[in-house]
Amino acid sequence: MDNVGLIGMVSIIVAGFTIAVGSIGPALGEARAAAQALSSIAQQPDEANTITRTLFVSMAMIESTAIYCFVVAMIVIFANPFWNYVITKAGGQ
Amino acid sequence: MDNVGLIGMVSIIVAGFTIAVGSIGPALGEARAAAQALSSIAQQPDEANTITRTLFVSMAMIESTAIYCFVVAMIVIFANPFWNYVITKAGGQ
Amino acid sequence: MDNVGLIGMVSIIVAGFTIAVGSIGPALGEARAAAQALSSIAQQPDEANTITRTLFVSMAMIESTAIYCFVVAMIVIFANPFWNYVITKAGGQ
Amino acid sequence: MDNVGLIGMVSIIVAGFTIAVGSIGPALGEARAAAQALSSIAQQPDEANTITRTLFVSMAMIESTAIYCFVVAMIVIFANPFWNYVITKAGGQ
Amino acid sequence: MDNVGLIGMVSIIVAGFTIAVGSIGPALGEARAAAQALSSIAQQPDEANTITRTLFVSMAMIESTAIYCFVVAMIVIFANPFWNYVITKAGGQ
Amino acid sequence: MDNVGLIGMVSIIVAGFTIAVGSIGPALGEARAAAQALSSIAQQPDEANTITRTLFVSMAMIESTAIYCFVVAMIVIFANPFWNYVITKAGGQ
Amino acid sequence: MDNVGLIGMVSIIVAGFTIAVGSIGPALGEARAAAQALSSIAQQPDEANTITRTLFVSMAMIESTAIYCFVVAMIVIFANPFWNYVITKAGGQ
Amino acid sequence: MDNVGLIGMVSIIVAGFTIAVGSIGPALGEARAAAQALSSIAQQPDEANTITRTLFVSMAMIESTAIYCFVVAMIVIFANPFWNYVITKAGGQ
Amino acid sequence: MDNVGLIGMVSIIVAGFTIAVGSIGPALGEARAAAQALSSIAQQPDEANTITRTLFVSMAMIESTAIYCFVVAMIVIFANPFWNYVITKAGGQ
Amino acid sequence: MDNVGLIGMVSIIVAGFTIAVGSIGPALGEARAAAQALSSIAQQPDEANTITRTLFVSMAMIESTAIYCFVVAMIVIFANPFWNYVITKAGGQ
Amino acid sequence: MDNVGLIGMVSIIVAGFTIAVGSIGPALGEARAAAQALSSIAQQPDEANTITRTLFVSMAMIESTAIYCFVVAMIVIFANPFWNYVITKAGGQ
Amino acid sequence: MDNVGLIGMVSIIVAGFTIAVGSIGPALGEARAAAQALSSIAQQPDEANTITRTLFVSMAMIESTAIYCFVVAMIVIFANPFWNYVITKAGGQ
Amino acid sequence: MDNVGLIGMVSIIVAGFTIAVGSIGPALGEARAAAQALSSIAQQPDEANTITRTLFVSMAMIESTAIYCFVVAMIVIFANPFWNYVITKAGGQ
Amino acid sequence: MDNVGLIGMVSIIVAGFTIAVGSIGPALGEARAAAQALSSIAQQPDEANTITRTLFVSMAMIESTAIYCFVVAMIVIFANPFWNYVITKAGGQ
Repeated sequence: MDNVGLIGMVSIIVAGFTIAVGSIGPALGEARAAAQALSSIAQQPDEANTITRTLFVSMAMIESTAIYCFVVAMIVIFANPFWNYVITKAGGQ
Repeated sequence: MDNVGLIGMVSIIVAGFTIAVGSIGPALGEARAAAQALSSIAQQPDEANTITRTLFVSMAMIESTAIYCFVVAMIVIFANPFWNYVITKAGGQ
Repeated sequence: MDNVGLIGMVSIIVAGFTIAVGSIGPALGEARAAAQALSSIAQQPDEANTITRTLFVSMAMIESTAIYCFVVAMIVIFANPFWNYVITKAGGQ
Repeated sequence: MDNVGLIGMVSIIVAGFTIAVGSIGPALGEARAAAQALSSIAQQPDEANTITRTLFVSMAMIESTAIYCFVVAMIVIFANPFWNYVITKAGGQ
Repeated sequence: MDNVGLIGMVSIIVAGFTIAVGSIGPALGEARAAAQALSSIAQQPDEANTITRTLFVSMAMIESTAIYCFVVAMIVIFANPFWNYVITKAGGQ
Repeated sequence: MDNVGLIGMVSIIVAGFTIAVGSIGPALGEARAAAQALSSIAQQPDEANTITRTLFVSMAMIESTAIYCFVVAMIVIFANPFWNYVITKAGGQ
Repeated sequence: MDNVGLIGMVSIIVAGFTIAVGSIGPALGEARAAAQALSSIAQQPDEANTITRTLFVSMAMIESTAIYCFVVAMIVIFANPFWNYVITKAGGQ
Repeated sequence: MDNVGLIGMVSIIVAGFTIAVGSIGPALGEARAAAQALSSIAQQPDEANTITRTLFVSMAMIESTAIYCFVVAMIVIFANPFWNYVITKAGGQ
Repeated sequence: MDNVGLIGMVSIIVAGFTIAVGSIGPALGEARAAAQALSSIAQQPDEANTITRTLFVSMAMIESTAIYCFVVAMIVIFANPFWNYVITKAGGQ
Repeated sequence: MDNVGLIGMVSIIVAGFTIAVGSIGPALGEARAAAQALSSIAQQPDEANTITRTLFVSMAMIESTAIYCFVVAMIVIFANPFWNYVITKAGGQ
Repeated sequence: MDNVGLIGMVSIIVAGFTIAVGSIGPALGEARAAAQALSSIAQQPDEANTITRTLFVSMAMIESTAIYCFVVAMIVIFANPFWNYVITKAGGQ
Repeated sequence: MDNVGLIGMVSIIVAGFTIAVGSIGPALGEARAAAQALSSIAQQPDEANTITRTLFVSMAMIESTAIYCFVVAMIVIFANPFWNYVITKAGGQ
Repeated sequence: MDNVGLIGMVSIIVAGFTIAVGSIGPALGEARAAAQALSSIAQQPDEANTITRTLFVSMAMIESTAIYCFVVAMIVIFANPFWNYVITKAGGQ
Repeated sequence: MDNVGLIGMVSIIVAGFTIAVGSIGPALGEARAAAQALSSIAQQPDEANTITRTLFVSMAMIESTAIYCFVVAMIVIFANPFWNYVITKAGGQ
């Protein structure tokens, strides 16, 4: 029953690591874009509409990399083919 | 009963690590956005409304990555499918 | 009785690590926001009210990530389901 | 049955690591490009069209490196030739 | 009697590590806020009252994360539920 | 059958590592070039054609290093001479 | 007699580590505040009193985190409950 | 048959590592040169020819270090004298 | 006689590590304060007295963290309660 | 036959490591020189000849350190005295 | 005779490490102070006396942390109480 | 015959490491000097002779540290007294 | 004869490490002071004498930390009390 | 014959490490001084003599730390008292 413990252990570690590390880049990146947008609004208030529209499109694109990480973490916890295989094996023994 | 200890140990480590590391990015990111917003208000007081509105939308988006981490940490502590599997096994032995 | 020692040891490490690492980001982040607010007040004294209000809302939001970490550390020390399970097991042996 | 556990374990780790690390570069890179675009719009509002068009082409190109990582992570989880080989072997034993 | 040594050893390490690492962020953060406050006073002496009041509120908030760490370190040394459990066990043997 | 597991394990790790690490440089590099291009367009709108042409040639050249990495990752997964050798050996045993 | 050596060894390491690491943040932080204060005095000599008063209050607050570390180091060397427990045990054997 | 596995394993690791690490420097370097070229064109449009010519010569030279790495990676995968020696030995056994 | 060697070895390491690491922060911090003081004197020669007085008070405060480290290192070498305990034990055997 | 595997393994690692690490410095260095040259041409177009001549001499000198690394990597793969010695020994056994 | 080798080995390592690491901070710190002093003399030649006097007092204070390290290194080599104890023991055996 | 393998292995590693690490400093250093020289020529074209002469003398001096490393790498590969000793020993056995 | 090898090995490592690491700080520090001095001479040629005199005194002081390291390295190689003790012991066996 | 291999191995590693690491500081330091000198010549051509003289004296002093490292590396390879001792011992066996 060694494989069950091993695969389970690794899955938990990977799920946490993926979302923890994977949230650093997007968080800092969105902050940078947002900070610049706020600065640009202060500098050119008449373009506030164009700026916020471009900001939200950009943030959505940056957020997408965080979502990739969240998707992988969820797959690893709830739809993990390796875990399914080993518990089927362990159950059938 | 080795797997119970192993999975439990790993779950605790991952829960703490995920939220600890996952809070660095959002904390610094929100601070950056907030700092820039404060600077922009001082520079263009008439646009304070637009600026704070954009700031709060941006912070909500940045906070979302911290919430992903908190969600994963809570799943790992209170709704962990790997832990449930191994204690069911251990209980049924 | 190995699992009791293991889970206990890991819980202590994680509680300390979570709050220690998790306090770096918010501390630096709040400092950045506060520093900018002080600079903005000096630059635009008439907007001191708007600035301090925005500052305190932002700091509350940044502090929230430190509180997530503190919550996880407290759960790990005083309401740890893994520890409860293993001492129940060890007690019932 | 050692190889099954080993290959499975490694596949999970690699899938998470690849997307977690691979999302840092693109997230920061897109943020940089977006921040500069917002600054340029504020500086030269008349060129907003050229700027946003160049921005979106650039972000697509930067996003491509994140997509390479996502593709490799998905291959490793769902179409992994090494895993297929070892479970065929293990099944045929 | 292995668990007694293990839990004791880990508690000491964690107490020291938590306060040592946890004091870096607040120390640097308070310094940043204080430095900016001093610079703002020099720039706008008439606002010295508003500035020092905002500074002390901010420093209190930053100090709070150092206090979280100190609280956890003290709990680990003097009110550690894991240590209490293992010495009760060891005493009752 | 040790070599089969070893070579397989290493191939998966290397494929993920190569593309994950190899995408950081190009992503940041393309972002830098794009950011500067956007800034230059804002500064000199009349040269937008020369600038975007030079930008796309440069990005293609930078992208080439990401493609080297992707090629090596694909070779390691699907056309790996070391893996072919060991499974031929293992099959012929 | 293993626990005596272990707990003793760990206590010495932790005492040194805590004060060594814990003095970096306050030293750099106080230096930053002091440097800014000196700069502010040069810029606004008439406010020297307000500036030095604010400086000393701030340095006292920053120094407090160094003192937390010193307190923990002293507790670990001279009032260590874990050490007292194990030498009582060892003495009573 | 140990050497076959060892040399094969190491060759795969080295091929991936070499191209992954070796692409960071050239990618960032070419980006820096390209960014400066774009900035120079915006500043001095009349010298666009001299600038792009110097840029492409420089990028070719920088790219050469990436090509050294790619060459070594390809030699290690497809023309590796150490691998040839050990499989000849292993085949002749 | 294992504990004697262990405690002795650890004491030497800790003494050196504490003073080596603990001198980095104060050295850099005092240098920063001194550099700023020199710059301020050049800028405002008439305030040289106030500046040097504030400088020396600040340096004394920064030096205090180095002295904490030196005190701990000396305690560990010459007044180490753990060492005294183990050599008493070893002597009495 | 242990030495054959060991020396072979190490030679492959060193060849890849040498060229991978050794290409970072020259790539960044040449980029820096090239970027400055492009900036100088834009600033002083009349000196373009002197600048590009000095640039190419400097890049040749910087490239020389990359070539040292490539030479060592090639010696280690194709003209390695240690490998020749051990396979002669192994062949003569 | 194990303790003699162990304590001796550790003493040598610590002596070298202490002075090597402990010289980085003061060297950089003195350089910073000296560089600023030279800059201040160039800016305000009439204050050269005050500046060099303040510089030398500051450098003496910074040098003091290097001297702490040198003192500890010398104590560890030539007046090491732990070494004296173990060779007395070893001699008396 | 262990020493032959050990010394040979270490020699290869050291040769590659020395030249790889040793080329980073000179490459970046020469680049810095060259970049500044190009900038100076653009600023003061009349002093081009003095500048390039000083540049080449400086680069020769910086290159000398790379040459020290290359010399040590070549000594380790082709004139290694330790290797000569052990193969003489091994040959004479 | 284990201690002879151990102490000898450690002495060589420490000698090299001490001088290698210990030369980084002074080299960078002296360079900083020298660079500033050259800049100051260019700015204030009339003070060249005061500047070079202050520079050489400062460099001597910075060099002193490198000399501490060289002294320790030489003591460890040629006047090492621990080595003398163990070879006396080994010789007398 | 273990000590011969051990001491030899360590000597090679230390020789390479010392010169590789020890050349980073001086190379970067000399480059900094040289870059500043070139900049100063461009700014103040009339002082070119004073500047180059001060530059060469400074570079000689910085080079001295590289030479310390080279001396230690040469001593370790060709005049190593520890190696001489062990091969004398090994020869006399």
